[in-house]
Amino acid sequence: MKLFRKAILPLGFKASGLACGVKKSGKLDLALFYSEFPAKGACLFTTNKIQAAPVKVSKDHLRLTRSFQAIIANSGNANCFTGRQGFLDAQAMARAAADALSLRKENILVNSTGVIGKKLPIEKIASAIPALVKGLSRQGIDKAKKAILTTDLFVKEVCVRVNIANKPVTICGVAKGAGMIAPNMATMLAFILTDAHIGRDALNKALTVAVNESFNCITVDGCMSTNDSVMVLANAAAANKAIVGGRDLEIFTQALNLVCLELAKMVVRDAEGASKFIKITVDKAKSDHEAKRAALGIANSNLFKTAIFGENPNFGRIVAGIGASGVAVSEEGLRMKVSPLGKKEIHVKVSLGEGKGSATVYTSDLTPEYIRINAEYN
Amino acid sequence: MKLFRKAILPLGFKASGLACGVKKSGKLDLALFYSEFPAKGACLFTTNKIQAAPVKVSKDHLRLTRSFQAIIANSGNANCFTGRQGFLDAQAMARAAADALSLRKENILVNSTGVIGKKLPIEKIASAIPALVKGLSRQGIDKAKKAILTTDLFVKEVCVRVNIANKPVTICGVAKGAGMIAPNMATMLAFILTDAHIGRDALNKALTVAVNESFNCITVDGCMSTNDSVMVLANAAAANKAIVGGRDLEIFTQALNLVCLELAKMVVRDAEGASKFIKITVDKAKSDHEAKRAALGIANSNLFKTAIFGENPNFGRIVAGIGASGVAVSEEGLRMKVSPLGKKEIHVKVSLGEGKGSATVYTSDLTPEYIRINAEYN
Repeated sequence: MKLFRKAILPLGFKASGLACGVKKSGKLDLALFYSEFPAKGACLFTTNKIQAAPVKVSKDHLRLTRSFQAIIANSGNANCFTGRQGFLDAQAMARAAADALSLRKENILVNSTGVIGKKLPIEKIASAIPALVKGLSRQGIDKAKKAILTTDLFVKEVCVRVNIANKPVTICGVAKGAGMIAPNMATMLAFILTDAHIGRDALNKALTVAVNESFNCITVDGCMSTNDSVMVLANAAAANKAIVGGRDLEIFTQALNLVCLELAKMVVRDAEGASKFIKITVDKAKSDHEAKRAALGIANSNLFKTAIFGENPNFGRIVAGIGASGVAVSEEGLRMKVSPLGKKEIHVKVSLGEGKGSATVYTSDLTPEYIRINAEYN
Repeated sequence: MKLFRKAILPLGFKASGLACGVKKSGKLDLALFYSEFPAKGACLFTTNKIQAAPVKVSKDHLRLTRSFQAIIANSGNANCFTGRQGFLDAQAMARAAADALSLRKENILVNSTGVIGKKLPIEKIASAIPALVKGLSRQGIDKAKKAILTTDLFVKEVCVRVNIANKPVTICGVAKGAGMIAPNMATMLAFILTDAHIGRDALNKALTVAVNESFNCITVDGCMSTNDSVMVLANAAAANKAIVGGRDLEIFTQALNLVCLELAKMVVRDAEGASKFIKITVDKAKSDHEAKRAALGIANSNLFKTAIFGENPNFGRIVAGIGASGVAVSEEGLRMKVSPLGKKEIHVKVSLGEGKGSATVYTSDLTPEYIRINAEYN
């Protein structure tokens, strides 16, 4: 398994990105990821009860077809809490892409990220789509990966190459997200493209495992977004023997895990205003589930996060965070170790002394800069 | 029912406060609240799984006796996560107070607030207790109410007078708390003294109702402390007919509610670094419980709180906060109204369009000053 810290498109994929005016700044804000062949699609979405219009439309398309060829995404406007009109706008966005690509609209997955509650400027998007499609190329990924960003300070991209049944398979991922990051995903979009030949059930299974061990293990501010989506397209261009289970699926899942985990960690590293990257490991919990709950209890504590920002060894806040999470723990069993606070990367290790469960989560510190960014963003 | 914004001791109570050196600053840090007559006691404690030693000791005393005469509290050190020694120290604190007051140690309720994980300087406390007892007086409440504070910027005090069965009854409350404030209480200590004659069950019932509608409806940072305690002593000095139920209990509960709610709101107003006081009302929820969950979903959203700080009308964050709370809600049913953001007091009204449940919670904005305070405090 080989990891590249750059998006390299797998066989049979092209991408494109441009600025269509959704962002007032004139920055790139419209991205297209395209497979030359029909691909299997798997998606995981936010569990927020309020879901953005593009999430609803993509879910509809997942029910309607098993074959996808494109992911379209705009940044700068989340098309959420936009009512019936928002739903029609998300459909129109899919339809415009489908028309320009000579596909059916249900072959397209739709995404939006940005401000909630403002009407999507669908005319700007629709009229830019022909140029977006025209711009599709292997190098287009460099613009596409930038066009999905909002408050991000850097691009999140990664690529993993792995042999499956003697054929090289590529899994490439790009993501956006820098705030509103909570377990069960984030204001986070991640698009993963692979040339693997894989069955639909196997792909869904692998994605569920991978997301659970990556995007669902990061938290920046405990805020869950209305637009979170992780989408995978697998177009079989690698011509490997179809992955349906067994050792092949294991290898594929490991590779997908790695892609998701690297992207998730990049999202935390880019956390709005963060000055520290924090890894929290909990072991000897009653179960893995309790370990994760305790770890998130610490990770979502504003008091803990400000203490880390201040390089303040107030570890009582770790104790309080664990206790507040409600997991089985006693003062007698609890052990803690925190790496030197002066460093940029902090590792908190906690042992609960209750059982064999363990989990690792990632978070950032809470800084005045986080507040400055979010006090102004709209 | 008459409300005074000042602690006025009910009949038969005295108090005292001094500086014994737990706080390095030399500020007042030891308080005693004393009833000349044996009083009924009712307490509610933090639900944090890690509980401070004084919480454990006070719980033991509540099991051992039905008659209390004093509450002792130190600030500057929480005596939490201090192991077996911490437990012995909390017991020693009760014993020293009992000796000086010629009581049994189980007649004393013990409290500590401040930094977690540092050994309590019990020698300093024990050697100051004779002077503390000597200082007991009706005016002593003015020092006692200050001696329980930590990062608080102002004293929290209130007094309610009400006639019950033709006798004037006084309920006086003082509290501390300015951060680590979460639903299910806070780093919050509240001591309530009343001369009401009331049965033990009735007192417990009234306190549960009152706390649920006050201290459990406030949140500053979503962090639940290990030391939260609300304690009531009722010494019957008002000589009213014993309150055991019916209309009398209703009136008493209303008065106790008012005391608790005023104290709770003061805690929010003093929230660390806060610049705004925020009231969040949710109605038309499926149930009162769901209304409260939705309201706390908004109140605990860092993104919402920073938006209010920035006077930034990014109401999508309200939508996201409600959706993330997991309550029944649809985009179609949801209605919001936010009072002008330029003011110091903000009222957010949300209607879920799902049923008849309602709730009100109180919170503050999240500011760079919160981070400065908590990055440094230890």
